[in-house]
Formats: sequence, C-alpha cells, structure tokens
Amino acid sequence: MSLESKEKAFYQLLGKIAHYTEALHLLYWDSRTQAPKKSADFRAETIGQLSSDIFNMKTSDEMRDLLDVLNKQKEELSTDTQKALELAQKEYDENSKIPKEEFKEYSILQSKAEHVWVEAREKSDFSLFAPYLKQLIDFNKRFIQYWGVKKTPYDVLLNNYEPDMTVEQLDQKFGALRDAIVPLVKKIEASPNKPDTSFLSKSFPIDKQKELSLFFLKELGYDFDAGRLDTTVHPFAVTLSRGDVRVTTRYDEHDFRMAIFGTIHECGHAIYEQNIDEALSGTLLCDGTSMGIHESQSLFFENFIGRHEDFWKTYYQKLQEASPEQFKDVSLEEFVHAVNESKPTYIRIEADELTYPLHIIIRYEIEKAIFNEEVAVEDLPALWNEKYKAYLGITPPNDALGILQDVHWSDGSFGYFPSYALGYMYAAQLKQQMIKDLPNFDELIQNGSFAPIKEWLTEHVHKHGKRKKPSEIIQDATGEELNVQYLIDYLTDKYTKLYLS
Amino acid sequence: MSLESKEKAFYQLLGKIAHYTEALHLLYWDSRTQAPKKSADFRAETIGQLSSDIFNMKTSDEMRDLLDVLNKQKEELSTDTQKALELAQKEYDENSKIPKEEFKEYSILQSKAEHVWVEAREKSDFSLFAPYLKQLIDFNKRFIQYWGVKKTPYDVLLNNYEPDMTVEQLDQKFGALRDAIVPLVKKIEASPNKPDTSFLSKSFPIDKQKELSLFFLKELGYDFDAGRLDTTVHPFAVTLSRGDVRVTTRYDEHDFRMAIFGTIHECGHAIYEQNIDEALSGTLLCDGTSMGIHESQSLFFENFIGRHEDFWKTYYQKLQEASPEQFKDVSLEEFVHAVNESKPTYIRIEADELTYPLHIIIRYEIEKAIFNEEVAVEDLPALWNEKYKAYLGITPPNDALGILQDVHWSDGSFGYFPSYALGYMYAAQLKQQMIKDLPNFDELIQNGSFAPIKEWLTEHVHKHGKRKKPSEIIQDATGEELNVQYLIDYLTDKYTKLYLS
Repeated sequence: MSLESKEKAFYQLLGKIAHYTEALHLLYWDSRTQAPKKSADFRAETIGQLSSDIFNMKTSDEMRDLLDVLNKQKEELSTDTQKALELAQKEYDENSKIPKEEFKEYSILQSKAEHVWVEAREKSDFSLFAPYLKQLIDFNKRFIQYWGVKKTPYDVLLNNYEPDMTVEQLDQKFGALRDAIVPLVKKIEASPNKPDTSFLSKSFPIDKQKELSLFFLKELGYDFDAGRLDTTVHPFAVTLSRGDVRVTTRYDEHDFRMAIFGTIHECGHAIYEQNIDEALSGTLLCDGTSMGIHESQSLFFENFIGRHEDFWKTYYQKLQEASPEQFKDVSLEEFVHAVNESKPTYIRIEADELTYPLHIIIRYEIEKAIFNEEVAVEDLPALWNEKYKAYLGITPPNDALGILQDVHWSDGSFGYFPSYALGYMYAAQLKQQMIKDLPNFDELIQNGSFAPIKEWLTEHVHKHGKRKKPSEIIQDATGEELNVQYLIDYLTDKYTKLYLS
Repeated sequence: MSLESKEKAFYQLLGKIAHYTEALHLLYWDSRTQAPKKSADFRAETIGQLSSDIFNMKTSDEMRDLLDVLNKQKEELSTDTQKALELAQKEYDENSKIPKEEFKEYSILQSKAEHVWVEAREKSDFSLFAPYLKQLIDFNKRFIQYWGVKKTPYDVLLNNYEPDMTVEQLDQKFGALRDAIVPLVKKIEASPNKPDTSFLSKSFPIDKQKELSLFFLKELGYDFDAGRLDTTVHPFAVTLSRGDVRVTTRYDEHDFRMAIFGTIHECGHAIYEQNIDEALSGTLLCDGTSMGIHESQSLFFENFIGRHEDFWKTYYQKLQEASPEQFKDVSLEEFVHAVNESKPTYIRIEADELTYPLHIIIRYEIEKAIFNEEVAVEDLPALWNEKYKAYLGITPPNDALGILQDVHWSDGSFGYFPSYALGYMYAAQLKQQMIKDLPNFDELIQNGSFAPIKEWLTEHVHKHGKRKKPSEIIQDATGEELNVQYLIDYLTDKYTKLYLS
C-alpha cells in the first residue's frame, strides 16, 4: 500500500468516526429536547451501541495498524495529518490501555453511581453515595497507573480535559486567584452599596424570553443556517457537524437570567464550533481544542459581552419592552448592578462571576487531595465545608447544598472542574489582547457591532480547532503563556467599580 | 455453541440492526423536519454510512453462519424465532444475491436519476429522464434474474413490497375494480349534483390547523408519550422504536384538507406501529407486515373515519369554530359532500377516494408491461396518456402532469404502487368484518368513541407485526382471502349516495 492510500484509509476511518458521532450527538440532543417519554429505554441502548462502536473504532486493530504504518513515515505527511495522527494515537493509547473487562465494569458503575447520586442528593445523605464515590476513585487511580503517572497522579486526570495542564501550574494560578478574590469578596460583603435585585424574580413572559434568546443569538453572530435553538432542562451546545451546531436553553418565568445569559453562554460555545476551519471537517481535529478553551469562549460571550454595561446601553430598552411592568422603575445602572450582583452562595451553577472561581478552586483542591494526598472519602464533606467557610465565609447547611450538588463525580469526571476556571483565565487574557487589537472594544459592544469581535476570536481561536493545543492558542494569540493576572485585574476593576467606589 | 447461545447471538445481531435503524430513522426524520440547511452534505454521508452498515450486517458472514446453524435446528426454536429467521434469511438472500459492485453502481444511478427526474419534471421533458429510466429498468431486470423469476418477472418486484402477491391475483382484483369504477366515474361526471367546493380554498389559520391536527391525533388514540407531530414538506410517519413513532404533516393556509386528512392518514400508519406486540421490539418482526397492510391502516383512518359523515356530525362544529368565516354558510351536508368530491384529475396524490385506485391501476398495468411485455421506454408517455383517457376520460396536457409526476420510478421502486390500491381493498374488507363485530360502528364514529375500533385493529392487525404475512392477516381477520367486492360495494354505495340518489 502506498503512503497515499494508507493516508486515505486513515481519513476514511476518521470520517466514519465523525459520521457515527453525528448520529450519536443527534440521538443525545433529541433525547434531551424533544423525544417522547416512551423512547427512553430503547434509546438508551441505541446510544450505548453507537458509543461502544465509536470506542471500538478508535481502539481497533485497523486503527492500530494505520497508526503504526503512518507513524513510520510521519515526516512525509502534511501538518494536519500529523496532528490528526497524534490525536488518534493519544486516544488509542488512552482507551486501549484499560483492560476491556475493567472498562465495562466501570461503565456499569458510572450508570449505577449516577442513580445513587440522584437519590443521595434528594435525601441529602452523603453516606449513600460514599461507597460508589470510593469505587469510582479507585477505578480512576488504577486508570492513572495504566495511563502512566506524570509529575503527580492528578496531573493525568487534568490532562484528560486540558492537554499539558499540571498541578504545578494550577497551584500557582489558582492560588494567586484565590488570594486575590477572597479578600475582595469580604470587602464586597461589608460594602453598603448593595443592588436591589427584587425585580429580577418578577414575571417575564416566556414567549418574550424566547424571542429575545433568538434575537441575541442572531445579533451575536450565531449562524441559524448551521444550527437551531431548542428548550431543555440542563442547557448545552452540541455539534452534529460543522454545519449543524445546536444550542439549547431553558426558560424560567421568574428568572429571565437563566434564558438570556444561558443562551449567550451557549452561543459562545456554538460560535466556536461553527467557525472551525472547514478543511478539518470529518476529522478528529474539527472540535474545540480543550474544555478550558471552550469555556473561555462561552464565558467571553456571557460575561465580557452579555454582562458588560455597554451591552445594555443598547439592549436594555428591548428588554424593558419585553416585560414593561418588571423594569419600569429600574434604571440602566440599577439593572446592570443587579445582573452583576456578587454574594457568596452554596451552589456553583448559581454563583456570580466573582465568586464562581472559588467554587472551582475548592473542587480542584479536593480532587488534588483525593488523588495526590489520599484523603479518605468519608472525610470529604467536612473538607468541603471547611473550604467553603474559609474562602466564601459560608458553611453549607447540608450535603445537598454542599458536596452532593454536582453530577460530575458520579460520572467519574475527575479533573474536569478546573476547566471552568481555566476558561475564565483564558478569556480574560484573550480579551486583554483583543483590546489592543480593537481599542474601540467597548464602543463595538455598545453599537452591537460584534462582527469584529467574532472575527478576532475566529482568527485566534475558533478556526484552529484541535490543530493547536490550548497553550499554543494562548501563546500565539497573546504573545505569552497563561497569566492569571488579567483575570485578577478584570475582576478587581469590575467589582471595585460596582461595589467599592 | 449451544442452541441457546446461537439464538442469543442471532437476537443480538437483530438488536444491533434495530438500534442502527433507530439512529438512521432519526437522522432521516430530523433532515426532513428541522435540521439546519448547512447540515445537508455531511448528513447525507452519515445517512449513507449507516444505511450501508445495516445492509452489511444483514448480509454479513456472521448473519449467514447464524442462519445456517439455526436453520438446522429450526423445529426446536420458538415460533417467533422461526419467523425472524425466515425474514432474516429472505433479506439475506435478496441482498446478497446482487453482486456488491452492481449494487453500488445501482445506488449511484438512483441518486443521479432522482436529480434528473426533478429537472425533467420541472421542464416537463420526458426525454431527459428516459435514458435513466431505461437503466433503472435494466438493473431491475437483472435483479429479477438474480432473485429468481417467479410465475412472471414482475411478480418478483411485487413481492418486494407485498409478500406472495402475484400478477395473476392483481389482474383479477384490479380488473374487477377498474371495471366497476370506470362507469361510476362517468356517471358522476354526468350527474348534475355537484358539490360547491369554493369554500375549501378560503383562508384557514395555520395555528388553528395545527391545534386541530394535534386534537384529532389525540382523539383517534395516537399516543403522544410514544411520538410527536412535526411539520414537513412531504408528510410521512416514521418509527424510531416501538416507543417512538413520529408523524409529520404540512399546513396550507388555503387548503386545510392537506393538514387535517393528511394527519389522520399518518395517524393510521403510526397507530399500527405503536401497537405491535412489545415482545417483538428490537427484532425484524417489529414492523408493519407489508406496504399494503400499512396503507390499509392509514386509509382506514383517513377515509372510513375521517371522511365519514358521522365523524363530522361531531367535529364539524369544532372546525367551524377554528375558521368561522370560512364555514359560516356551509351546512354539514354541503361540507361532507365537498370533502368527498370526486372528479378525474391528472395528479395521483391529489385524487379523491373513488378515482385514486384508477391512478394506481394505470401504474400497475404499465409496470407489468415494462417487465412482462417488454414495452419500450420511449413508448411509455403515450401508453400513460392512453390509459388516462380510457379510464379517467382525461388526457394529461404534458408529461409533468402525466408520467413524470411521481418520484417512485426515479428511485427504482417498481412494484410499489400496487400497495396503495391493495391498502384500499384490505381496508374495505377489514371494515366489513369490523362492522359485524362492532355493529354500532357508525355510532362509535359519531360519538368520537374510537377506542373499540382501535382495539379491533390492534387485535386483528397491529399487534402481529411481521409475525403474520398480509394474506394471513386478512384470512384470519375476515375468514376469507382478499376479496375486492367489499371495496367495490363501499365505493358504489358511498358515491351513489353522494352523487346519484
């Protein structure tokens, strides 16, 4: 077989994986937005079937043989093919190193653990979930051994979501961030300048929320010829193919922020995937490069655009028209302060922009303790509560509002949480550079001229897909490696202005 | 391997096929109801991938080996497994007898031919389509040889859609039907008692049509926990799984009949598949037993319920309320006559209940001529027009309104058309028996009490899935083999009453 025909066979296999992924993602999306109730059991099996087919293709003998022959002539391949090869090799290694029987047991455990977690959270009883959590941790500790320990065991898990990320780096960045935010949160708590937020929970007609969600997606540059907006319980964006990136949102009559800021958040994820270089379509490279960079895009849209006061100079009137009774006595300034309210809360997904990173840092420190320091599972709720007291000044009254609040661990997703805070840091650093290239950034926001902003992000982030690693994206876009100071400065400036000046 | 484990492996393979079919049908449904424009190219490839995977599973060595070993111990298997085995064997034989290379060429031709047909129809130029039609016919003639000629070559094609159906049978049934309808159509044409249909095309708000479509589906017993209603261009029902059978419809502001009768038609298809015995789920038997029996269910709902005058005794008021201006001067009797208007038209899908079978009989006679009598492709338009003149008394003014109107031949679907008229005959025969079992049939319709009707159909038709062949369904439900007289009597009674009494 010539090199050319081997390369062709390799791309055919990647293409097949991409087509199966489209089918799988459609099944997933459909189940979460619109499938009828009685579809559930058969559907779950169909999703299981296709997932395992994709897993099998990625770890097949065919894949191994293609990787082997292509790796021998790697320097003769195009850069893109080399990148695809590296990625396929990485996935092959990660997946094939776990014995099949063990992986199957783990899948069954994941599914059981999630059900137990739901019950434990409902009953606010950590002891129900603890034995499952312990098993999930033990599996992951074994997986770390299979994959090969890096500097520390937890580094291996971090790498599953953020290539090349290390405990060493995160200790430094998250440490600095925590040390900057904790005193700021305390100062804000003590400030008498609190916003009136009572109007936020007034009735906002759902059909109007829907109209506005569609409107903002269009304004921000989401391409409706390559996507749709639908309703779901836990909003998400999902890519079926580069020409079909769907967003979902939810509507709460008494909290319009869910839909408006939630939609803008998912818009950031979706615009990323709609603008990956078309040449990468149907390969493993046609995807966001990491969870952290993905989150940087959603947070950029949600916080730096959607919660920017200049954004509302243009759009507040539109919001007022949609729910006149609610906003009739609320000035623009009062509105902006209210939607940027900061105060310590128990629940991560309800946290504001300032306190949110502390929720993540707590989870990071606990995960690190689990995998690098061997803390006992039964001691975790106390550790959780201690950290909430220390960083946020509040102690969760029960485990449902504490350690049981997130689904991630029940799925065995350890090492995922840090991506959320990394996304904040990446976003702030990208914005800092963008302002240099687009000095009229605030003016663009105020004019609703988002095209130059989207183009900048496409040029520096979106189009590269997985061609560049997260660290390369940041280095190439901003001329330096990840620097937490930009986020610290941004949060300090914003919240000093809102609360302390 | 024990018999039990071979049987298990067989059902696992059927299950895998069923799960792939769910994914494929969801992709298909999504593309036709809601997928964004730019999804099309990648989606077409994904559909191609899964279709060919299903084809490959059905003709795999694994399937062949399982069929071989299970057939040797067939008498030890359950009746259901024997049926599944027979069906899998039939599909294996049909599909594996065509050389792979030839099948691939044929698939490419099908796809090209459909594009050419679209253009030919637009330009009303049969000569553009003729060379493709000739190739499609030649392929099918070869396929007939591979599959093995039955009594006549065309019998083989009929069997693809209606097991055990023969030219001999259809010549007799269709001949009798044609000889009964043709004079009736002429008498109606000459009758002075024509309905006023002018109100039919008045504006009927689309949102009201939508509400009514949902309402009628619920009334008729469609299970919304196991399905949905969506909008599309060419309405269809599709089964993802037994718990997820979706219907689609279309809305024309100036022809409410499209949505109302179209939805009721698809409702009949969907209720069939929602009520197949649950034990058959995930096997090849969980499907309608033939195109003809399927059509009998949709036509039963559309014509025997939806166009029944007693149906409108209950629901006409609801229709009037939905579009008061349109119906304010139209009596119930006038309404019923108008929606049951009969007159010869060029286009099959716009034909009424009485003339519709003639459109089918014409296609049957032409297909039979093509495969059994070797008529030349270039002579087909003249043959078509002659038959329209002879049976319907009208001559299509061009090929777009004549031989180019249907998509079926461009897809190579020869032998499919007869199912539509078979559906009419089956439906009339089933109804005849149902009236014996439910003598208050008309009263049930008038009271909107459809449950006993649905239960009767489930008991005699739906639940059996592919456990019974079409001929067995009819024989077991009615105590005799297919008898065209019931349809002739029904049409004669109905249209005599409407036009000639």
